[in-house]
Formats: sequence, structure tokens, C-alpha cells
Amino acid sequence: MSQAYEGPIQDLIDELGRLPGIGPKSAQRLAFHLLKVPAADAMRLADAISEVKRRVSFCSRCFNVSEHEICALCSDSRREDGVICVVEEPRDVVALERTGEFRGRYHVLQGALNPLEGVGPDRLKVKELLARLDPESITEVIICTNPNIEGEATAMYLGRLLKPLGVAVSRLASGLPVGGDLEYADELTLGRAIEQRRSLD
Amino acid sequence: MSQAYEGPIQDLIDELGRLPGIGPKSAQRLAFHLLKVPAADAMRLADAISEVKRRVSFCSRCFNVSEHEICALCSDSRREDGVICVVEEPRDVVALERTGEFRGRYHVLQGALNPLEGVGPDRLKVKELLARLDPESITEVIICTNPNIEGEATAMYLGRLLKPLGVAVSRLASGLPVGGDLEYADELTLGRAIEQRRSLD
Repeated sequence: MSQAYEGPIQDLIDELGRLPGIGPKSAQRLAFHLLKVPAADAMRLADAISEVKRRVSFCSRCFNVSEHEICALCSDSRREDGVICVVEEPRDVVALERTGEFRGRYHVLQGALNPLEGVGPDRLKVKELLARLDPESITEVIICTNPNIEGEATAMYLGRLLKPLGVAVSRLASGLPVGGDLEYADELTLGRAIEQRRSLD
Repeated sequence: MSQAYEGPIQDLIDELGRLPGIGPKSAQRLAFHLLKVPAADAMRLADAISEVKRRVSFCSRCFNVSEHEICALCSDSRREDGVICVVEEPRDVVALERTGEFRGRYHVLQGALNPLEGVGPDRLKVKELLARLDPESITEVIICTNPNIEGEATAMYLGRLLKPLGVAVSRLASGLPVGGDLEYADELTLGRAIEQRRSLD
């Protein structure tokens, strides 16, 4: 896209274009949308951005998003201590909480290993995870990184790091999605489902 | 999506989700992106939005975006008077300017007729277009709305409105894209290209 617009419009297009998944065409479309809507509507978005940056940061224990020093999940005394679920992003905490299957604590790595993009263990909250094991008497770590290349690599890395420390390490099961159709499953997923087959009791 | 996040994050997700083409999943992804980037980066976006709303509005003559009462294209004395190119949106002005083929004036309708979404002629800058004909001694109106259902309906409507007023009315040509491949053209486009064939001189 050429620099076709006057100052503030081009600035807005540029800023919107920096967002992930927003190409130059989308940025232009969004900018013109914001130009057209009533000022109050556009300002609600601008204010929401500044409010989030002002009020929300990350829990100093689990690195989930939080408005406080320690997040609601870490400070909830009704949750089980000793088991940590390790996830990549705060949205994964929300996804897991929605299942209602896990009542322990979380640890958000804030990413996954990605050597091609220069994301090594030092860019993730790995040493912060290790630092929690003793003080919180962690006995089990469930690695819930995504079932893709980066997530699997992160899981392998963490597994190797954690096992010698005497904690039980497990990984989310891979397999067919519940309600899914065998015919439409990709071969990797189907292969994994066979490999990790469970005996019927 | 459930209301899964704490106050300001959910507010931001909601506001992002109101943008066109941004679904709840994208809104969540964008919100967490903004949470993660340095505050200065996020605030540049917030500021760009408020700057646009503060400084940019629409030209009172052609309804293109403008930082001034009358936009640069309307006040440029080197441009040809008497010919108006009617477009749907400001981005169409930019697209036409890029061709370098048109040196007249523009008029931005700020939309196209869309009865299903309740967009009638009164929602577009139609009477503002009619009001320009006499004072600007307009002799030709080139209708450059999009070659889709809404754009064609708008062109037909404007054509019927303008012809009795004694101005020449023309429409952008439809046909095969230059550099395109006949084999890959959709049948509507190819049909239109046959229908509007030109004799070789």
C-alpha cells in the first residue's frame, strides 16, 4: 500500500496494520470504519486499550493476566495446591477453566519455544516455573501447551527439565475431538489417536 | 464466547469485537497481543484512534475524508471542473487517484444502496451530489460504484436520477482484469466482457 492518506488516517492505518493478522487492506478498512462511527464508539475502543494497559498486568506468581499483584486463581484458597497446569497463554487458562476438570494452579509460559523466531527458554517464564516447585511443594506438572510443533517442543523441553527434579510430569492427551468424525480427522491426529489408544475397562 | 475475563480485558475484547470482520476469537487474540506489547506501542494505537476522531472528518463538498472543511482534491485548482467521479468510499478515491487517469472532481456517497440492511438513498450523500450539479456546472458524472449488487443498484438509481437533469452519465467498464487469464475469469465477468465488447479500430 502506498502512503496514500493524509497524516492521522495513515498513522491509524499503520498502527492497526501492526496488529497480528491485520494486513494492510484490513487496516485500511478498520481505519475507515473508525472514521465513520460516532466519536463516542471509537473513543470507547481507544479508552479500552489505555485502561487495559493502565490496570492489567501479569500475576507475579503464575503470569496469568491480573489486575492485582497475585491473580484470583493463585489467591483462591479453595483450589488444590501441589499440581500445576502449564499453559502457553492466558487464553488457555480460560479454556481449561471452562472444562471444570482442573482444580489446581496454573503457570503461564507466555509463549512456546520457537527457535525460528528466536524464542528460546529464556523468553518464556520457565525459570519462574522452576522457582515455584519447592515453595509450593509441587508434586505434579501437567503440560498443556498446544498440540503443534512449538507446543510439543516446549512440552519435551519442560519434561526433560522437570523429571530429574522428582515431580510427576504429564501431557494433555492427543486424539480425535469428541463429537468428531473419524473420516474427517487429519492423518496426524488419527495416527496419534491410534498410538495413544486406551484399553477399554 | 463467555464473559471469561476480568473487567478491562473483557471490555477491550468487546470493543475489538465490534470492529467489522473481527470475530470473538480474533478480538481475544488482539486483546492479548495488546496486553503483551510494551505500553508505548499499545498507546500509539489508542492515540491514533483519538487523533483521527479529533482531527479528521469529511469534506463538506465531496464527503471524502479531510482534515479541513474542504479537502485537498476539492480545493486543488489544477484539477478539471465539470466532471465528477462518484464513488462509494474514500478508499475508492485513493484507488482511482493511483491510476492517474482521472483529473476531475470526486463525490463520495459514503456507502451503496442496500435495502436488506436498510440503506436507502437518504443514508447516502445523494442529495448533496445533486446540489453540486448547478453551482459547479457539472456536465458529466462518472459512476464508479463497485461492480457488485449494491454498487450496480446504486449506479442504476443514480443514472435514472441524473439523466433527466441533462448531465452525461457514464459507468466504469466491467470486463476481464488486465493481465488476467480468461480461463480463470468467473462466468459473470466473462459474460460482461462479451456483452461490453469493443470494436478494434
